[in-house]
This record gives sequence, C-alpha cells and structure tokens, in this order.
Amino acid sequence: MKELWSNSIRGLEPYSPGEQQAIDRLIKLNTNENPYPPSAAVLSALRDAVNADLRLYPDPEGKALKQTIADMHGLDPANVFVGNGSDEVLAHAFFALLKHELPILFPDVSYSFYPVYCALYGIKYETVPLDDNFRVNVADYARPNGGIVLPNPNAPTGMALRPDQFRSLLERCRNSVVAVDEAYVDFGADSLVPLVKEFPNLLVVQTLSKSRSLAGLRVGFAIGDANLIAALDLVKGCFNSYPLDRLALAGAVAALRDREYFETTRAQVVESREWLAKELSMLGFQVLPSSANFIFARHPLHDALEVQQQLREKKILVRHFTQQRIAGFLRISVGTDEECRRLVEAMRGILRDSGSRP
Amino acid sequence: MKELWSNSIRGLEPYSPGEQQAIDRLIKLNTNENPYPPSAAVLSALRDAVNADLRLYPDPEGKALKQTIADMHGLDPANVFVGNGSDEVLAHAFFALLKHELPILFPDVSYSFYPVYCALYGIKYETVPLDDNFRVNVADYARPNGGIVLPNPNAPTGMALRPDQFRSLLERCRNSVVAVDEAYVDFGADSLVPLVKEFPNLLVVQTLSKSRSLAGLRVGFAIGDANLIAALDLVKGCFNSYPLDRLALAGAVAALRDREYFETTRAQVVESREWLAKELSMLGFQVLPSSANFIFARHPLHDALEVQQQLREKKILVRHFTQQRIAGFLRISVGTDEECRRLVEAMRGILRDSGSRP
Repeated sequence: MKELWSNSIRGLEPYSPGEQQAIDRLIKLNTNENPYPPSAAVLSALRDAVNADLRLYPDPEGKALKQTIADMHGLDPANVFVGNGSDEVLAHAFFALLKHELPILFPDVSYSFYPVYCALYGIKYETVPLDDNFRVNVADYARPNGGIVLPNPNAPTGMALRPDQFRSLLERCRNSVVAVDEAYVDFGADSLVPLVKEFPNLLVVQTLSKSRSLAGLRVGFAIGDANLIAALDLVKGCFNSYPLDRLALAGAVAALRDREYFETTRAQVVESREWLAKELSMLGFQVLPSSANFIFARHPLHDALEVQQQLREKKILVRHFTQQRIAGFLRISVGTDEECRRLVEAMRGILRDSGSRP
Repeated sequence: MKELWSNSIRGLEPYSPGEQQAIDRLIKLNTNENPYPPSAAVLSALRDAVNADLRLYPDPEGKALKQTIADMHGLDPANVFVGNGSDEVLAHAFFALLKHELPILFPDVSYSFYPVYCALYGIKYETVPLDDNFRVNVADYARPNGGIVLPNPNAPTGMALRPDQFRSLLERCRNSVVAVDEAYVDFGADSLVPLVKEFPNLLVVQTLSKSRSLAGLRVGFAIGDANLIAALDLVKGCFNSYPLDRLALAGAVAALRDREYFETTRAQVVESREWLAKELSMLGFQVLPSSANFIFARHPLHDALEVQQQLREKKILVRHFTQQRIAGFLRISVGTDEECRRLVEAMRGILRDSGSRP
C-alpha cells in the first residue's frame, strides 16, 4: 500500500519524544519539563484570551510577540522569528538555511531530532564526535561545511560552552549559518544573542518550553540577522500562515514579560540541580557538569537501562538513550526538591538491592 | 546575502492570507471567519485547561482528539490525523502523499495555497480549468496523475459537488491519492467521509476554523485509510512532535462534542448567506451558488477592486483576488445578519454613487 506514499518519505524514521504517560502520582523526570507551573501572569493572560475573538484568525506575523522578544534584547522585530515550539523553528531553519552542497555539521551526541530533519529534507550531514569528556571542541567544526548546528548547553549532556568560544568559529564560517540551539540556556549558560548584531551568520534558537514552564503551549523563536529571519518567514509563509494560535501568542508575551517569576524559578531549578548532582555523585554516579535543567549521569557498576526500568516500577520516569556512546547514561530532569529527594531515595534503594544480588 | 539561504527556497512566494486588521468597529468579511463566537462549552473547556499542567508537553499523538473525531464517524483513531490548522495538515499531505513522478491536478481557480505547497516541496502540478460556469468537472481529472486535490465546496467559488460525483473518479484513480479539502463542507455540502472505508485512496481534510468558530485556535484534521494517515503521522513526527498545544487539544474536543451549538450556528450562517445572495442579486450582482460561508459575486458594471476599496473606506473588508479569471469577483464572508445588512446598504450606496458618475 505504500505505493500511495511519496517516494521521499519512505524510510524516514520519526523523532521519538519522551513518553507523556498518564500514570497517577508519577514523578516525571523524562522530558525536561519545568517542575514549576507557568507564572500567574501567564495563566491570567491566557484566561483573558479565552473569549469570543477565538473565532478570528491570529495575527499571522505574531507582531506583538516578535516585538516583545526584540525589546528584551534591544533588537528589531525583523531579527525575530516565532514558531510552534523550537522544534518547528528548527525544522524551518534546516529547510531554509541548512540545505547546501556541503554537509552540515553537528555533534555525534546531541539532540536526536537533527538527523531526523536532515532525512526529512534530504540534507547532507556529518557528525563531529564530542571529545572523551563529552565536550564540544569548537575547533573541530572549523572546516568546509554547509552549516553548523550546536546546542548550547548541549543535550543530553547538559554541558555548555562560553560565548567567546564561539567567536572564532563564527568568524571562520561566515559563509554558512551557525545555528545555536539554546533550549536550555537559561539554566546556567550565557546566550549568544548579544553576538547577533556582529555575526550575520548566527541564528540563535530558544524556546518557552523549559525555563518559562510552557512546554504545553508550544512557542519557540529564533533571533538573528534580518536576512536569516526573512528566510524563515518565507518558508513559514509557504507552509502554514498561522502556526501560533491566539492563546499561545498571548501566553508567550505574558511569560516573557514576567521577569521576576522567571528569575525565581530558574534559580530554584539550578539549586535543585546542584543538590541532585551532589547526591548522585555520592551514590557513585559520574555526573557530567550540567548547565541545563537536567543531569546526565552514569554509574560504573550499574546498567542504565535496568536502573531506568527499576525507577519506572517505582513510578519515576527518567530517560535512557540507546545510542551506543551514551547507552550507559541516564538523563534525569530536575524536578522539585521533593521529587529530587524521592529520586535519590529510590536510586539508593535500587543500587543497594542490586548490589546485594550475587 | 541570500547566499546563506538554501537554494531550494530562492524564488518561493508565500501564500498571502487575508489581512487581520485591527481597525476599530470594522466589519470583517474578508477571511471567512464564523461571525459567531466559539460555543460556551469550548470557552469553558479552555478555561479549565489554563492550569499548571501547561508546564507539561501535550500528548504528541493527540489521542483524545483523534478518538473524538473517529467516534463521530464510526471510524478508528488510526483513520484520523490532527494538525495545526488544515493548512498544516495539507502541507504534510502534499509532502507525504502527493509528490510523485506524474504531476498532481487541482482546479485553476481554487485555494491559492496549493501551488505554494507544490513550490515548497518541488511537486509537479497541472491546473485543470473550471468550466465556463466555474464548476469543477470531475471527468476532467480522470487522466494519469500523481494525485488530485479538490476542495469541496471549492474556494473561492463556494460551489460544491455531490459525493456521488466523486465516485467514478475515486474508482478510476486508485493508484493516486484524491485529497478533498472540506474546509467549508458544513455550510451546505455533503462530506465524503462516509466513502473513506470504501476508497483507500481518499483523504478528507477538515478544519475547526470555520464551522466551529475556532480560526484562532488552529486545529485541522484529515480522515482516511490508516495507510494514508500513517504517512501523515510519519512526516509530522519528523517535523514537530507536538504541533497542537494543550489548549488547542482541549478546545477542539469540546467543540466537536457540542453538536447543538454547531447545528444552530451553521444553520444561521446558511440563512444569512441566502439572504445576502438574494440582496446582492437584486443589486445586479451575478452570485455563484454557494455551499460555503462566503459568497462569490461579480457585478457586470462595476470594477471589483474599486468596489472593494470603496467598501474598505466604509470600514467593511471583503476579499479580492488578482488572478485574471476571477478578478471581476469579490469574495464576501457571511457575517451576522446586522453585518450582512450593513454590507448590502454600503454596496447599494457605492453602486448608486458610482452609477451617477459620468
């Protein structure tokens, strides 16, 4: 029956998102959601937007949201693209800016959606290995390429580079787009947005899903030179005029304006992360230094997949990736203090019980 | 600077949605929105969904929405695809099911997004002329093709075919997908959904934007054989795991369940349309027989673009298309009775004033 399918989609493999399970009293530390709810200002703005105007199309350009983001950074709305989550923003970026004769480059251990976009759009790519300490070595990317995609902090390692480490790369690769995926930047890394005015080849992608507690609202954006943004807007205009609904637009503006709540919750997540990292280290885990809202850790004596399944039996979800180089790791989202405490307690029990087996 | 753009996007022209203007006390009859608000049940469901769970990702599969749609038609959720408005659903359908060696076919006068999708994805197409009365002649499509896209009712003509008129086409084109875009079907045409079980090559696309008064929420769906739906789900899974946010999913389910409100408002729109058609005919317009929530009409003595601009001066927006064959027409969305009355009154004034000019 697949004869009715377009040739170009045969053999595609979709990205696998972490499961969204409806188990009662579950501790859900598998998809890097924020443990804190959206700010009260967001909920209030959303309630206000639930009105008769929902019969009308949203603003196709999302002008108010673009303006809000531009104002935060002293930029122009022409420097801002908005989309249905950073996944959609990235998809358009791959299609609009990263499809060239030369292969694009991204780390061998990184967001597993990147190779999926490449397959979808027929984009050539090469992966660049992280070093033995799972670090991105920027110099490895300074070779002929059709574009570069670097998450900062990287996922699922959580490890970040400093903006100055990107400078030489941005200078050397002026003829290709360097897309920096900053989904997790607010939890401990420095954004590259201040470099946008200097480098017309830099595209910074962010999301409201993590640090703004709005994974359920689907809002992402990109910041870059107006020429790059024009390419994204063009592709978006050929795909779907209104990817952001009226509620998403209203909620996103309110979220970005509530600076205080953002600062409070992200500080809390960072504090919990540091506690969690310390506790897991004390249990014998190797914990990579995280600048994100998750921890990437492996235990020298325990099989990660087994531990994941044992945690699941205790109603705690964490994520495991089968990719060989990282199959020994678990990615654990930072929860509330109580969730982190229960995770550590469960982990302690699992290690003890399996340690006592012959 | 376009050297940073992917080659494949140079020369693309985006679809132009009708303007979403924020003019005070405007009568907006240019984008076929429903003049009535979403049902109270929808607004209530949306308010309930504005809660702390917005920190969590939505269900990537939209299972509850798929089930609701399947139940309405005695089908299985595997027969249902859901997306961010029917524009996104159509985009995925073009990519997943309509890209083949042979060109796809659609009417020369139709939804102007179709050729945009073809350009975006490099899909070959041929347009098939409507007959002299602006009717789709189904027999014209019974020739070798890579797929067929037919809106029913057609836009912007508003004219519909009966399901039995599609039968022979569906039988003769079993090796290609026939996508029927039913954005306006609820206002007076019969849906082809009952034929889905019989024809594995039939894909029916619908939206909540028009007859459910939810243009601002961005929800569309497709119904078809599980094999076709699997192709759409695959492409969606390679593009964006969560195109429907938590609020859109909740609102859509509530909208589809409120059958009574739907029946009441669509009957009201149909009644207003008939009144509007009669009044415009009496003013000398040729009004095509509409099964949609808009009217497509031309006046033998008046330039459509001029009339559109004069209406705009009176704060009434209607839509004009520059495409040569229909440049003499205006597309007028059906408003409330009061809006229709004011449109007719304004039109009467414009015709009288310009008639009195030398």
